[in-house]
Amino acid sequence: MAERTAVRRGYREGIGGEMLAEFLGTFVLILLGVGSVAVAVVGLPGSGRQTVPFGAANWLIISWGWGLAVVFGVYVAGGISGAHLNPAVTLGFAVRKDFPWRKVLPYWLAQVVGAFVAAALVYATYRWAIEAADGKAGLPRDKSLSTYSIFATFPAEYFGDSWWGPLLDQIVGTGILLLLICALIDLRNTAPMANLHPFIIGLVVVAIGLTYGTNAGYAINPARDFGPRLFTFFEGWGSIALPGSFQWFDHYWWIPIVGPLIGGVAGVLVYDLIIKPVIRARKGEAAEEGPAVEEF
Amino acid sequence: MAERTAVRRGYREGIGGEMLAEFLGTFVLILLGVGSVAVAVVGLPGSGRQTVPFGAANWLIISWGWGLAVVFGVYVAGGISGAHLNPAVTLGFAVRKDFPWRKVLPYWLAQVVGAFVAAALVYATYRWAIEAADGKAGLPRDKSLSTYSIFATFPAEYFGDSWWGPLLDQIVGTGILLLLICALIDLRNTAPMANLHPFIIGLVVVAIGLTYGTNAGYAINPARDFGPRLFTFFEGWGSIALPGSFQWFDHYWWIPIVGPLIGGVAGVLVYDLIIKPVIRARKGEAAEEGPAVEEF
Amino acid sequence: MAERTAVRRGYREGIGGEMLAEFLGTFVLILLGVGSVAVAVVGLPGSGRQTVPFGAANWLIISWGWGLAVVFGVYVAGGISGAHLNPAVTLGFAVRKDFPWRKVLPYWLAQVVGAFVAAALVYATYRWAIEAADGKAGLPRDKSLSTYSIFATFPAEYFGDSWWGPLLDQIVGTGILLLLICALIDLRNTAPMANLHPFIIGLVVVAIGLTYGTNAGYAINPARDFGPRLFTFFEGWGSIALPGSFQWFDHYWWIPIVGPLIGGVAGVLVYDLIIKPVIRARKGEAAEEGPAVEEF
Amino acid sequence: MAERTAVRRGYREGIGGEMLAEFLGTFVLILLGVGSVAVAVVGLPGSGRQTVPFGAANWLIISWGWGLAVVFGVYVAGGISGAHLNPAVTLGFAVRKDFPWRKVLPYWLAQVVGAFVAAALVYATYRWAIEAADGKAGLPRDKSLSTYSIFATFPAEYFGDSWWGPLLDQIVGTGILLLLICALIDLRNTAPMANLHPFIIGLVVVAIGLTYGTNAGYAINPARDFGPRLFTFFEGWGSIALPGSFQWFDHYWWIPIVGPLIGGVAGVLVYDLIIKPVIRARKGEAAEEGPAVEEF
Repeated sequence: MAERTAVRRGYREGIGGEMLAEFLGTFVLILLGVGSVAVAVVGLPGSGRQTVPFGAANWLIISWGWGLAVVFGVYVAGGISGAHLNPAVTLGFAVRKDFPWRKVLPYWLAQVVGAFVAAALVYATYRWAIEAADGKAGLPRDKSLSTYSIFATFPAEYFGDSWWGPLLDQIVGTGILLLLICALIDLRNTAPMANLHPFIIGLVVVAIGLTYGTNAGYAINPARDFGPRLFTFFEGWGSIALPGSFQWFDHYWWIPIVGPLIGGVAGVLVYDLIIKPVIRARKGEAAEEGPAVEEF
Repeated sequence: MAERTAVRRGYREGIGGEMLAEFLGTFVLILLGVGSVAVAVVGLPGSGRQTVPFGAANWLIISWGWGLAVVFGVYVAGGISGAHLNPAVTLGFAVRKDFPWRKVLPYWLAQVVGAFVAAALVYATYRWAIEAADGKAGLPRDKSLSTYSIFATFPAEYFGDSWWGPLLDQIVGTGILLLLICALIDLRNTAPMANLHPFIIGLVVVAIGLTYGTNAGYAINPARDFGPRLFTFFEGWGSIALPGSFQWFDHYWWIPIVGPLIGGVAGVLVYDLIIKPVIRARKGEAAEEGPAVEEF
Repeated sequence: MAERTAVRRGYREGIGGEMLAEFLGTFVLILLGVGSVAVAVVGLPGSGRQTVPFGAANWLIISWGWGLAVVFGVYVAGGISGAHLNPAVTLGFAVRKDFPWRKVLPYWLAQVVGAFVAAALVYATYRWAIEAADGKAGLPRDKSLSTYSIFATFPAEYFGDSWWGPLLDQIVGTGILLLLICALIDLRNTAPMANLHPFIIGLVVVAIGLTYGTNAGYAINPARDFGPRLFTFFEGWGSIALPGSFQWFDHYWWIPIVGPLIGGVAGVLVYDLIIKPVIRARKGEAAEEGPAVEEF
Repeated sequence: MAERTAVRRGYREGIGGEMLAEFLGTFVLILLGVGSVAVAVVGLPGSGRQTVPFGAANWLIISWGWGLAVVFGVYVAGGISGAHLNPAVTLGFAVRKDFPWRKVLPYWLAQVVGAFVAAALVYATYRWAIEAADGKAGLPRDKSLSTYSIFATFPAEYFGDSWWGPLLDQIVGTGILLLLICALIDLRNTAPMANLHPFIIGLVVVAIGLTYGTNAGYAINPARDFGPRLFTFFEGWGSIALPGSFQWFDHYWWIPIVGPLIGGVAGVLVYDLIIKPVIRARKGEAAEEGPAVEEF
């Protein structure tokens, strides 16, 4: 083992190792996160309803499920790639010059592939439950918004034909995410120590779920939405997945990609324009937060 | 960037930087906290009922939502302003001489403005959900206690025309908050380390929500209530918001301001009269808890 | 202030200061814990049912409420008295010689008084809610098991006339509590650092609530039960409180006192007979866990 | 005491002490975990239904119950045996050469015995509740899947006669568990410090419950399933327990044994093939994660 390691070291020390970590971290994120929606939608008794059965207790399962999914995705990849697991995080860090632009596309690729592969494994594991629920509802797969909702997102019906509503929701949600990540890794602010920042960062996602999750399924991560969306497109959900059309929404696919990317940059800018210069002025420039990002 | 920082340093090192931090911290607090009530009231299916639909699972969403909102508000502002985010905290610290009186009003202003602006952004994001819910209930906005409840507080119906009941509730709730904050930042007591005090302080607010939240909506923070209340007044909820009148309550607006201010001071006094002198006597006066407040 | 402190120092350095800390810590414990049951029973809509309305989501409120109540009771008193807050803890520590026998009765007294006073404040705050619920149910107070259940405990109906069932439940629950406290403060085992042991110890109580709470209301603490029970006796619940009699139970009052005391000692013995000697043998006797208790 | 310790030191320093720790840790795990299902199934009002009444809020009780059960099982045994508490963990560590093969069978034995004894104590405590529920449902014990479900696992009805479905579920669930444990104890990755890894590892089990718990009861631990299963077999649940047969499942007993063992090894391999060599290449081989396992 040690010998084989030595041979491949060059590869592993470079972007290849980081892509593997982003792949596996995002894989864990989706495996757990999408799994939690599966429990809420087809796992518990009473599944198979045509409408998405998100009672408040189900919503707690989903919010904690996604939050813990982030916790553990970060713990898996943190020591290698910084555990972005989200193209909006990668873009935001690049914009604030904490991350090299040349690595952005490789990270994005690894994240989307990780999400796609994880969606396939969730499907393999929940296939029986999904088929039973669709069967009970008497719905062909490409009409079943309920089982589709396990994998990817769509807007609440009340948005009607507004694309601005869900887009704003994604901008706000991802803006909060990046603003708070910037705070949590800033060693001159109150960054959690003892390697507990992955836990606290996961709680950010619990919080966003409990506060902005119901408008449009809180993708807040283009890879989290697009990877599983692509999988469901190939697996029979058809146009619900791509281009993302069903009764009250149409060509929705781009919103959980563009919204998070805009929102992530916005969140970074809010932190860097309001908090960062004040901290710099008060605590000196010596202890830049750069290293924290490295370790994160 | 570094150059521009140098120019504005004087401003940022002083009260201006602290006000920015209080503004943004309270903004995050309200953005998440009020968002959690939006999820519970208009986000989940079954919204649009005329009565406020707070089942026990919804209440878990709200209590965890507000608690995590505090966690992250504190992480954002902690390194600069001490993250009071609450006029009752600011007053309490001034009373125990941990905070200069001359900064009290500027902090209060920054907190209320942050809360107001955040309420506006929550409204912008949840406008469609709010309109759909009011529409389904057939209620004009200024009669819709349900959608108003997303933003600001009011007493439970069982209080009847008692103003003492909800006032006492606010005193008790905020008293617990400040008593526990005093304990959690006292380095000679058992103050949490590793920069995890924001997490534990947020759990205080989860606890207060689960134990005193249903009497009167647990404002326990004049800015948290008055900022969004002002916004809803301008946005069409009218007299429900200001002066705070609806069927069983009348001119309620001052209770979630005065109650928390009294309660906060009471909580500080309980800690400083019962615990502080004992700790001082037993552990010496060297390690005063002052510095902890600085960092908090 | 400093001068007055100097004068009373002798008093505060001794048992008096510790009793004050036990009083206030137990006061916080009951103020939050009993408050959480009030939210679950009379705070949320749908209150006023004659049967105790403990759905699963209500039970989550109660278990987290009591768990967080312990967290914060310990943070308040931890630096002074070790934060027992529970006669069963005090007895258990005395049995294992980590605590002087002569302080046992003073601690017990402070704990019961703290619990009694806290129950009175909960009642003052929830009086309107309690009266409304009893009014809606058409029950005189001394027949209202539902509102009584806010304050103190009673066995599930399925125990019939068995006193052994609820007693065993209290022994098992408190046994788990003390066994785990012994583990969590043993520095040679895996004791949590960074002053986070109060948080983890509170999670023990969340766990016991979720796993043994429904049999008999998980007193697992004689002061937690007897203090509020005494208050309700004086406040009109009469014989439901003392001697603790209602339809299916009779003279119940002693079980949540005797059960926890037995169980606590049992839990200590299990740790000290199974784990402690093994740790001692493997890690040497130098780092005794005694000091940890001091700090706890 | 000290003298007796000296006498038995040889025994306690060796495998005997470790087996005692594994016994007691697994005992705590099952005492709390199985207890949480008892609360959800027969503890809360509305019990006694013939179908397993797992609403979403009940599922939160069960997932948090099992997760906290792991937290505290690990805190009890962590300082002595590494707190595997799970034959799949023991096997996985042996496969990656972090644990001597000769200790595998003794650990397994201690784990199964601990689980069996704990199941007996849960039964002793919940006997009244179980008998009342079965009585209300009018079911003889050997036909009561509901009360059986407190103790051991079975597949969801939608799996029909597929054994591959639940087996895959167990492989995936335990794979996630071991993959994440490997990450959480790897000091060159982002392993949590301050002795908080037992808390975070418990959250892994909360996460698996919320995401893969409903397919087949998330045994993810052969001892957790087989110990209580054996107990229920002797206690009257008969063929539901062993060989594990009821209406839609038949001879199920081996799946929660074989599935976790395969899955655990798979999880270890994923970490050791993808993450470990990259970390080694980037951070040097000096700080091997071996010692972390020792302490864990």
